[in-house]
Amino acid sequence: MFKHSKVLQYPAKPERPDPVFAKKMQEILGGQYGEISVAMQYLFQGWNTRGNEKYKDLIMDTAAEEIGHVEMIATMIARLLEDAPVYEQEEAANDSVIGSIMGGMNPHHAIVSGLGAMPENSTGVPWNAGYIVASGNLLADLRANVNAESQGRLQVARLYEMTDDKGVKDMLGFLLARDTMHQNQWLAAIRELEEKEGVVVPGTVPQGYEKEEYAHTLYNFSDGEESAQFDWLQEEAPDGAKFQYESGPVAYGEKPVLKPAPKQSHNTPDYGD
Amino acid sequence: MFKHSKVLQYPAKPERPDPVFAKKMQEILGGQYGEISVAMQYLFQGWNTRGNEKYKDLIMDTAAEEIGHVEMIATMIARLLEDAPVYEQEEAANDSVIGSIMGGMNPHHAIVSGLGAMPENSTGVPWNAGYIVASGNLLADLRANVNAESQGRLQVARLYEMTDDKGVKDMLGFLLARDTMHQNQWLAAIRELEEKEGVVVPGTVPQGYEKEEYAHTLYNFSDGEESAQFDWLQEEAPDGAKFQYESGPVAYGEKPVLKPAPKQSHNTPDYGD
Amino acid sequence: MFKHSKVLQYPAKPERPDPVFAKKMQEILGGQYGEISVAMQYLFQGWNTRGNEKYKDLIMDTAAEEIGHVEMIATMIARLLEDAPVYEQEEAANDSVIGSIMGGMNPHHAIVSGLGAMPENSTGVPWNAGYIVASGNLLADLRANVNAESQGRLQVARLYEMTDDKGVKDMLGFLLARDTMHQNQWLAAIRELEEKEGVVVPGTVPQGYEKEEYAHTLYNFSDGEESAQFDWLQEEAPDGAKFQYESGPVAYGEKPVLKPAPKQSHNTPDYGD
Amino acid sequence: MFKHSKVLQYPAKPERPDPVFAKKMQEILGGQYGEISVAMQYLFQGWNTRGNEKYKDLIMDTAAEEIGHVEMIATMIARLLEDAPVYEQEEAANDSVIGSIMGGMNPHHAIVSGLGAMPENSTGVPWNAGYIVASGNLLADLRANVNAESQGRLQVARLYEMTDDKGVKDMLGFLLARDTMHQNQWLAAIRELEEKEGVVVPGTVPQGYEKEEYAHTLYNFSDGEESAQFDWLQEEAPDGAKFQYESGPVAYGEKPVLKPAPKQSHNTPDYGD
Amino acid sequence: MFKHSKVLQYPAKPERPDPVFAKKMQEILGGQYGEISVAMQYLFQGWNTRGNEKYKDLIMDTAAEEIGHVEMIATMIARLLEDAPVYEQEEAANDSVIGSIMGGMNPHHAIVSGLGAMPENSTGVPWNAGYIVASGNLLADLRANVNAESQGRLQVARLYEMTDDKGVKDMLGFLLARDTMHQNQWLAAIRELEEKEGVVVPGTVPQGYEKEEYAHTLYNFSDGEESAQFDWLQEEAPDGAKFQYESGPVAYGEKPVLKPAPKQSHNTPDYGD
Amino acid sequence: MFKHSKVLQYPAKPERPDPVFAKKMQEILGGQYGEISVAMQYLFQGWNTRGNEKYKDLIMDTAAEEIGHVEMIATMIARLLEDAPVYEQEEAANDSVIGSIMGGMNPHHAIVSGLGAMPENSTGVPWNAGYIVASGNLLADLRANVNAESQGRLQVARLYEMTDDKGVKDMLGFLLARDTMHQNQWLAAIRELEEKEGVVVPGTVPQGYEKEEYAHTLYNFSDGEESAQFDWLQEEAPDGAKFQYESGPVAYGEKPVLKPAPKQSHNTPDYGD
Repeated sequence: MFKHSKVLQYPAKPERPDPVFAKKMQEILGGQYGEISVAMQYLFQGWNTRGNEKYKDLIMDTAAEEIGHVEMIATMIARLLEDAPVYEQEEAANDSVIGSIMGGMNPHHAIVSGLGAMPENSTGVPWNAGYIVASGNLLADLRANVNAESQGRLQVARLYEMTDDKGVKDMLGFLLARDTMHQNQWLAAIRELEEKEGVVVPGTVPQGYEKEEYAHTLYNFSDGEESAQFDWLQEEAPDGAKFQYESGPVAYGEKPVLKPAPKQSHNTPDYGD
Repeated sequence: MFKHSKVLQYPAKPERPDPVFAKKMQEILGGQYGEISVAMQYLFQGWNTRGNEKYKDLIMDTAAEEIGHVEMIATMIARLLEDAPVYEQEEAANDSVIGSIMGGMNPHHAIVSGLGAMPENSTGVPWNAGYIVASGNLLADLRANVNAESQGRLQVARLYEMTDDKGVKDMLGFLLARDTMHQNQWLAAIRELEEKEGVVVPGTVPQGYEKEEYAHTLYNFSDGEESAQFDWLQEEAPDGAKFQYESGPVAYGEKPVLKPAPKQSHNTPDYGD
Repeated sequence: MFKHSKVLQYPAKPERPDPVFAKKMQEILGGQYGEISVAMQYLFQGWNTRGNEKYKDLIMDTAAEEIGHVEMIATMIARLLEDAPVYEQEEAANDSVIGSIMGGMNPHHAIVSGLGAMPENSTGVPWNAGYIVASGNLLADLRANVNAESQGRLQVARLYEMTDDKGVKDMLGFLLARDTMHQNQWLAAIRELEEKEGVVVPGTVPQGYEKEEYAHTLYNFSDGEESAQFDWLQEEAPDGAKFQYESGPVAYGEKPVLKPAPKQSHNTPDYGD
Repeated sequence: MFKHSKVLQYPAKPERPDPVFAKKMQEILGGQYGEISVAMQYLFQGWNTRGNEKYKDLIMDTAAEEIGHVEMIATMIARLLEDAPVYEQEEAANDSVIGSIMGGMNPHHAIVSGLGAMPENSTGVPWNAGYIVASGNLLADLRANVNAESQGRLQVARLYEMTDDKGVKDMLGFLLARDTMHQNQWLAAIRELEEKEGVVVPGTVPQGYEKEEYAHTLYNFSDGEESAQFDWLQEEAPDGAKFQYESGPVAYGEKPVLKPAPKQSHNTPDYGD
Repeated sequence: MFKHSKVLQYPAKPERPDPVFAKKMQEILGGQYGEISVAMQYLFQGWNTRGNEKYKDLIMDTAAEEIGHVEMIATMIARLLEDAPVYEQEEAANDSVIGSIMGGMNPHHAIVSGLGAMPENSTGVPWNAGYIVASGNLLADLRANVNAESQGRLQVARLYEMTDDKGVKDMLGFLLARDTMHQNQWLAAIRELEEKEGVVVPGTVPQGYEKEEYAHTLYNFSDGEESAQFDWLQEEAPDGAKFQYESGPVAYGEKPVLKPAPKQSHNTPDYGD
Repeated sequence: MFKHSKVLQYPAKPERPDPVFAKKMQEILGGQYGEISVAMQYLFQGWNTRGNEKYKDLIMDTAAEEIGHVEMIATMIARLLEDAPVYEQEEAANDSVIGSIMGGMNPHHAIVSGLGAMPENSTGVPWNAGYIVASGNLLADLRANVNAESQGRLQVARLYEMTDDKGVKDMLGFLLARDTMHQNQWLAAIRELEEKEGVVVPGTVPQGYEKEEYAHTLYNFSDGEESAQFDWLQEEAPDGAKFQYESGPVAYGEKPVLKPAPKQSHNTPDYGD
């Protein structure tokens, strides 16, 4: 069950309107690695966790915080759209500044949401749940989480470079910090799980399932041998085994020959050669 | 530039037809973490890499291998559909085995592809590029890769449990092994990059961008304190700093008040209270 | 800002496993009119509301409740998948009951989520934000809400008919009740707004924008005159005007003739007749 | 069966080219609440109607009219793209007006459709059928319709404010009027159905399905009590019952505990605390 | 402008209920090559045609007919769902026939549409406009049309094989015939255009744009030389030129080296080797 | 199995940065008819081909070449983004050239990919597999291929008109040539298959399936008779039969009457008239 508190976790107040930046900021709201993605990913991971209450609680704590981040960014976008010339007519557009605002903003902000945030990314594509994962395997999922927080912080850093509005930078600076924490916490929890299960996910695959003779070889599928030069190829692999290197791709299979289809499929019959 | 070799990397030959399993196997072909995803993710990461030729080569080697995995699974699916009662009529469906095949298979395999693999997942949703990422930041992207190989190997392991066909299990055993290698290689490369850049992505954020006072605190946004019990909260954080814990969520912001919209937006005017 | 409480708003406990019903129940979790839709729709409406604090609060109250409904249904689905034969192999599938479970369940529940709920609908299509709306116009949006609660309650009622599990029916009975409340509250708020603004949205269109002579006519674009028989056509229209009826479709425009395209578009040149 | 008449229902002729406005106008053609949505929604509602010929005819009349609206807007867009500098090269783009046209237009209009309308919205997202509903329950569906006509008219009104082209405004003025009619007709038909069935959809839920004790309570899931101040909370609810108010969220359920997953799922085992 | 006639173009009446076949039939209603696709493709092609009234009229004639085909199939699906056990409860599902119906049908038919057709394909994916094209170049578009009618007729033929219901087969036999006509008409119109413009689309590319030395060579990018054995490689190419064959892929470019990114992008710096 | 060669098939080097053109060029990379589409379409067609090794080899040769085209375009886009003002701040945006770059570019190129290509089209919509087809029927599929190469070459020609960068034009000139070859090869192979199977796909439909009396009639579903004027209507149809023309649409069916739904569906009961 969730309860809403009306205050924001952190201020979300720009110095001045900027509808073009509002469009760009949609990326960290409703993009592949925006706040909706982490909020929804953590919610589903938490709800699907079986046992492991500590992990479940950590995940749900972070989920609830992330809904609050969606709220902060939505508020910031709504404010970047206030007092801006978004309903101007053609004559005004001949002014080059107004013209580039009208051409560069997201038309949904004027036509669909009436100066509010949209649940979509910076190119106007609606958020979809194909972005997220909750697999029931915590080590797999925490890796998804550290990935999401890494891509997310990278995008926040880039947005930080693209504005000189002190209010926007202040909030982005807070988000950078929270992503630092979230990377740290998932990395720490990953280490704990890796100590229990080993580094290869899932750690529960019984002996005999995997064809072990192919489990540590780097096949060189490109011309040139640059990839052979990694020092770690000479060291112990993360799972404790020894890496191998094959300088050319090796085929263990044969050329596949498919049987003809039945006549009811109306496929092309085999005309031979 | 790419060149095709007609032999498969590894045999893809089932013992017998199984259209219901063919539907399930679509997940690791065209699902969120299927082979199309890793192939396309690595291709775009490779093409977007600037400098760092060793990494680029490693990524392109793996990309080329993964296109070959798509090929193996597509071949396996085509064969699982051979000699199966997929064009049966209603009377036949009253036989319970045929009925459950006809109800449980993917109708696209009969109607659209004529007994061939589809570029879609196990529920019939077409693959889309919103699943993948290539960010220009290698550490971020290698984390996306170890995530993808972890989720992917988990799904292969589950499919392995769901069939007793020795031919299918043989190929899945090979894929388990290759995912072991790929997890190992990305983890090894991640360690190398983390030594250079630190663990927080991106490692290039200048002092003063981030609000550092919020960068290591776990806020408890759920009732109960299970998440406080992690041992690692008392230890050094992965980035070397010290974790903190706040037992209640803290609000640094205020209740936001948005300005009224201009009349051209035809939003609801403020009726006050 | 949001806070999570670990208890559910209402019990979510089935009597026994039922993976086929778990698949169907996904509709009210991640479908077009599932609980994710109403939760996200209300959140964005609340965040985008300018002034009108009463309405904003009502919307946010309901938003927070709906996240809790997502949680209840996710929990129910996870439990419907417990202790069920979802990882059975081919031999077992020859048993007709197991066979129809394996054919009729959502493969994601076995392969992707590991017996957890998915953020998708009953056919496996991921939830997307194209389902929802937050327009900045409250009367428009409350109509979207009463629509969503009507479609949602209808779907819950149909699911209620499709199971005899007392635990599932108990929770669905609670959802039916909450949807009754939500229909009532949105209808009551709509009445209040309609009294202020009139029934035609948006109520702020100035005289002279609209071509009023076409604003109350029913054009009969089908053969037959059944639609002319509505009693209300003879009564005052909801906005106070008088309905008119045209028994045939009337064209006010002409046959459009488009200019030829420039040669750089490489369109087909006009070959005349 | 449908028959096409070559004349337009209403003129669709702009005064002058405006590719940036053409992009914006795509919203009411192929957006969530554009004319394709209403046309397709009404078609499917009509085809799925069982009995109730008057309603079916009204729905099909409106469906046929809406296909004609798609035609008018498609024609307008094609004309807004005529004689415009859409195939200019870089040098020309240094002119600020041409530059903002080239940056602000939808590239599909130049590259894909050759100066024609696209079946997509103002950000270039293709129309999809997830926008529409035809449920078999007329009251539910008419509410979907009044919602669609409200959002649609709101968007038309906003576009009206964003151009000073008299030809465009003329056509938008006609669409405003038709949306007024369609809101009126659906509202009138809703009243008729509500008199027969009551206001809560579906009206056919038998006594005992719904947990009635939860069917009229407003739970306050946000801090603060603004939502308690609605006058209608003290009045009879639209369905005739009495509203109740709970100032804090109430939990009727318990903290859910999920069973461990079977080993074949390769989920994380329960590590306890 | 469009007018609806209440009679169907051809009868759409099955002998008996068959919800599993109803699900399959959705493919030719709302799938990639279903009737919605051809209807919408032809509508947009017609509306975007500039001049060339004969072609425009042919396209619009066919568009209007195809909307009528959507109607016929929607009606057939609604009837295949009548009198079928789609709201059965768990006990009934133990009957193997009912069980396979409940597992094999599209849950939307019971939960969302109330026994009506859905605007989606046979796996439940909503129709989207990314399936269709209207390019402004008639020869290109007529090729899209002959492709659509070929894939469409192939799917109808496969469905014909999968039922023994005489009513369904009767309607499918009519659709087979109409697809025969439509293939014929588009092929005839293509021939006419090819005589005017040549076979390579677009026929308007000026001398000097194309690198002609690469315009007729088959590069062998696979091992083996089977593709060299086509007789037509020795004959005049369709555009009148002479085919050439290169037995190995030839690279005209070099290994690309990208410049480092600016520091504001926070990409990985070049670590050299 | 696939092998990567590091050299490009053809140079991909622009003269100067142009982020707005980079956005447009995404269309032929990740759009409906971009290079990802043809690469994936040919791969799946090749893998699904049963027998017919010559065709399979031709298809796989072309598939492998097309992956190389994706690579060339991705490289070109990455270079068009180098040295461009994509991370500028608001003050710089007041310069009208920088402003129109910032407004007209794809924000993903700055925020998501860090100056690299994205797997999406020119409006930022991610590539999806609903664009492609592999049906098992070669004649159907080669028609899909000649369609794709026609639309693709048309789009390349339009892009060629929209830049004056000699490096970009050089690569587009190569792509024009390769599309010429691919149109020629598919047309030649189509002719070969049509000689074997006839022109109507699929050529294997047995006598009696099709209602032949409707297989060659053009029904005039629009007012006016322009479509009757095609010369080819008087000539032999492509399949050798004789065309017929009906000047008005003819209905062979009746007005459909659907049965009432069962009460468990909670549809609207029939209220009669």
